[in-house]
Amino acid sequence: MNDFGSKTFAAWRAAAGETWQGYVEHEFVVGLGSGDLPRAAFIAYLVQDYIYLLHYSRAWALALVKSDNIGQMRLAAATVNTLINEEIQLHVGVCEREGISEQSLLDAEEAAENVAYTRYVMDAGLSGDLLDLLAALAPCVFGYAEIGAKLDDCSAAPRLYREWIDCYASADYVAACHAVAELIEQVALAKLGTDPQANPRWPALCRSFNTATRLEVDFWSMGIRLGNTA
Amino acid sequence: MNDFGSKTFAAWRAAAGETWQGYVEHEFVVGLGSGDLPRAAFIAYLVQDYIYLLHYSRAWALALVKSDNIGQMRLAAATVNTLINEEIQLHVGVCEREGISEQSLLDAEEAAENVAYTRYVMDAGLSGDLLDLLAALAPCVFGYAEIGAKLDDCSAAPRLYREWIDCYASADYVAACHAVAELIEQVALAKLGTDPQANPRWPALCRSFNTATRLEVDFWSMGIRLGNTA
Amino acid sequence: MNDFGSKTFAAWRAAAGETWQGYVEHEFVVGLGSGDLPRAAFIAYLVQDYIYLLHYSRAWALALVKSDNIGQMRLAAATVNTLINEEIQLHVGVCEREGISEQSLLDAEEAAENVAYTRYVMDAGLSGDLLDLLAALAPCVFGYAEIGAKLDDCSAAPRLYREWIDCYASADYVAACHAVAELIEQVALAKLGTDPQANPRWPALCRSFNTATRLEVDFWSMGIRLGNTA
Amino acid sequence: MNDFGSKTFAAWRAAAGETWQGYVEHEFVVGLGSGDLPRAAFIAYLVQDYIYLLHYSRAWALALVKSDNIGQMRLAAATVNTLINEEIQLHVGVCEREGISEQSLLDAEEAAENVAYTRYVMDAGLSGDLLDLLAALAPCVFGYAEIGAKLDDCSAAPRLYREWIDCYASADYVAACHAVAELIEQVALAKLGTDPQANPRWPALCRSFNTATRLEVDFWSMGIRLGNTA
Repeated sequence: MNDFGSKTFAAWRAAAGETWQGYVEHEFVVGLGSGDLPRAAFIAYLVQDYIYLLHYSRAWALALVKSDNIGQMRLAAATVNTLINEEIQLHVGVCEREGISEQSLLDAEEAAENVAYTRYVMDAGLSGDLLDLLAALAPCVFGYAEIGAKLDDCSAAPRLYREWIDCYASADYVAACHAVAELIEQVALAKLGTDPQANPRWPALCRSFNTATRLEVDFWSMGIRLGNTA
Repeated sequence: MNDFGSKTFAAWRAAAGETWQGYVEHEFVVGLGSGDLPRAAFIAYLVQDYIYLLHYSRAWALALVKSDNIGQMRLAAATVNTLINEEIQLHVGVCEREGISEQSLLDAEEAAENVAYTRYVMDAGLSGDLLDLLAALAPCVFGYAEIGAKLDDCSAAPRLYREWIDCYASADYVAACHAVAELIEQVALAKLGTDPQANPRWPALCRSFNTATRLEVDFWSMGIRLGNTA
Repeated sequence: MNDFGSKTFAAWRAAAGETWQGYVEHEFVVGLGSGDLPRAAFIAYLVQDYIYLLHYSRAWALALVKSDNIGQMRLAAATVNTLINEEIQLHVGVCEREGISEQSLLDAEEAAENVAYTRYVMDAGLSGDLLDLLAALAPCVFGYAEIGAKLDDCSAAPRLYREWIDCYASADYVAACHAVAELIEQVALAKLGTDPQANPRWPALCRSFNTATRLEVDFWSMGIRLGNTA
Repeated sequence: MNDFGSKTFAAWRAAAGETWQGYVEHEFVVGLGSGDLPRAAFIAYLVQDYIYLLHYSRAWALALVKSDNIGQMRLAAATVNTLINEEIQLHVGVCEREGISEQSLLDAEEAAENVAYTRYVMDAGLSGDLLDLLAALAPCVFGYAEIGAKLDDCSAAPRLYREWIDCYASADYVAACHAVAELIEQVALAKLGTDPQANPRWPALCRSFNTATRLEVDFWSMGIRLGNTA
């Protein structure tokens, strides 16, 4: 498993244990690789993920608001920019090709699982400091890369899922993960010191990472649930 | 139906239509009055509601942060104070009598439905102004009073549920609702003018009220779900 | 010098050095005790302090938003309540007796020194965690108690200033300081560990305490400046 | 006078009256054009402006957090990006050439006038909605363009000041102002309706614009003050 050079992330992931496995090996993920995931589930996921990305961009903007120096601000600004001007556009493009107009993305009702995850992250930022926010953001950033790498040699994936896999298995995405990993290391050092796990905040940070991971599990399950009722 | 003197709340409730009925007439609510609600569901609800009340207090503190004048601040401060020093204590007392220690309340894992609702409200406050926050807070404030009034003459309610009903049917709770109703009218007038529904923000405020109501429905369903797996 | 049982505050105060002395021994403070402070300066200060207290209440409400447990929330709620329902009312009463109506308090233009101090504290809360906010709040809480104690045996103070001194030399105010001191110790332990000064956040916390202290110095100077132009 | 197509800004500026003139025709501004501004004042301003730009970037990130749709988010993201990756870098370059290292920029003590202005804007965002934040951001955005245009044909400006003038008189900067003007019009329409000045929020928005303008006046005065003591 790749930790992108972040010991802090590696320790959070280890502490999340089964919950992490439940996320990166979720039935939805397995189905992406095997091609057994119903198309309706994937489409429902895409629609919700569009809404998710808007709030995820807001969360990275909040990271900028809470940054302590210009280096941190620069990384947060670059992340927001990539999300808003590239990742979301890519999303809109894929959806359009699959017959979902941007208007229907905008009109979609946000699922409760989506509300739970995105607003949890925002509130982690409002209630805590930059490190608390990063702990809640980390499962999404690194989990998608782990899933992308895991699925990369699934030759059974149909074209639509392949495209998604390629995005998160791409060198660009891996590079973005390395940058976030470096940010986390820098902030963990600045807030917790050289032995992060000895700091009294450590259990709460693990809990936050774990809760965000649980909410990722629910997000996959939401895709399947919505696909069934579509 | 009582609107506590708030035309704004009455209009939000009307706009929520079926969703509002689904909340105040939820199977969980009906079961409280008839006594058919399994005790395990009620206990599971109480445990989650303890966590809910902590975040609800935070949301009212955020209302104070976002207040425009001392009258608004005074009401928000009084609400926070009642929540923290009375309502939560009452809760702890009932739980203890039912064999749930305060420690086990503190150790309980927050359900996803709880995360969704509480953090949605906090983010409504962070992203918008005081009125946006109040629209997300209103379903809880007034819905519980409506439920309390509705269940007040259910003679079949067992003692444990009776106590809960009495709390939200009490003159004190009704008075608190009138105070919040007055605050909402004042803030709606200050932000939207004399014809709130003609203001372009109106649809978004209705949507926010409606989403919070949906999340209330999910909160009742959570009680039943957790009761079944207890 | 009293540190109210908070080693953390004592260390912050020591680190602020001359700046702290410039605050608690400011010409304005000396003039309160000797009676040499022009009445116009004191009145101008009172008017600005009314506005200050509104934002100070907001800052304590933000502390509640950022609290990690119910004990912290309870203290923040009690502080907000005392500020809103007692300290501000006392203020309004004194002002009224001195010929300043509550309306003229509400109409007063906020001085730049007031903006600087109050908004600095709010932003310390938005950008950081609860401890960052408390470091910015501490100079006001404890400095006023130190000044109250220092001036308590100044027999030369005229009645108007005596009343102010009595407020901050009172057993009630000292008790409130002890409660805040305990909160700071608890939060410092939870965020920094058993050796706060060894934590990498320590210099930034000292800087924030120091900046807030500088802004207190400016607040006193503002009183004199406005008194001269009244 | 150019209003960049924003009637809302034009009305805010008109309401600010003398205060606006005091800002765009400040002694510091006049001195930039005539070359009579002491170099020490300009350098002191540049150092503080570096700190200002960091917080200004944070304020635009907060605008993204508070955005209601992807169009608004895109503009806020682009603004943050330009500030962080271009404007601040330009600043660092000019300072370096004038003998001020980036380290000394980082080490500079933030002046009270800087604290007042930047934190006022942040708190306008925290306490209100996106429009409240934009009203506090507008004086900086458009005032610098007005000053740039005004000074553009001052042939007496020495090279160092000329460079600064060119930046804010540039087509790029004017284009950025047009984009912000469009955002303000869009948000004003969405929050206030077709007759913004008839909305009850109008006076508070004017007050906020006016306060931010006053703090701009103080910022210029700060440059002169610090230049004198350098």
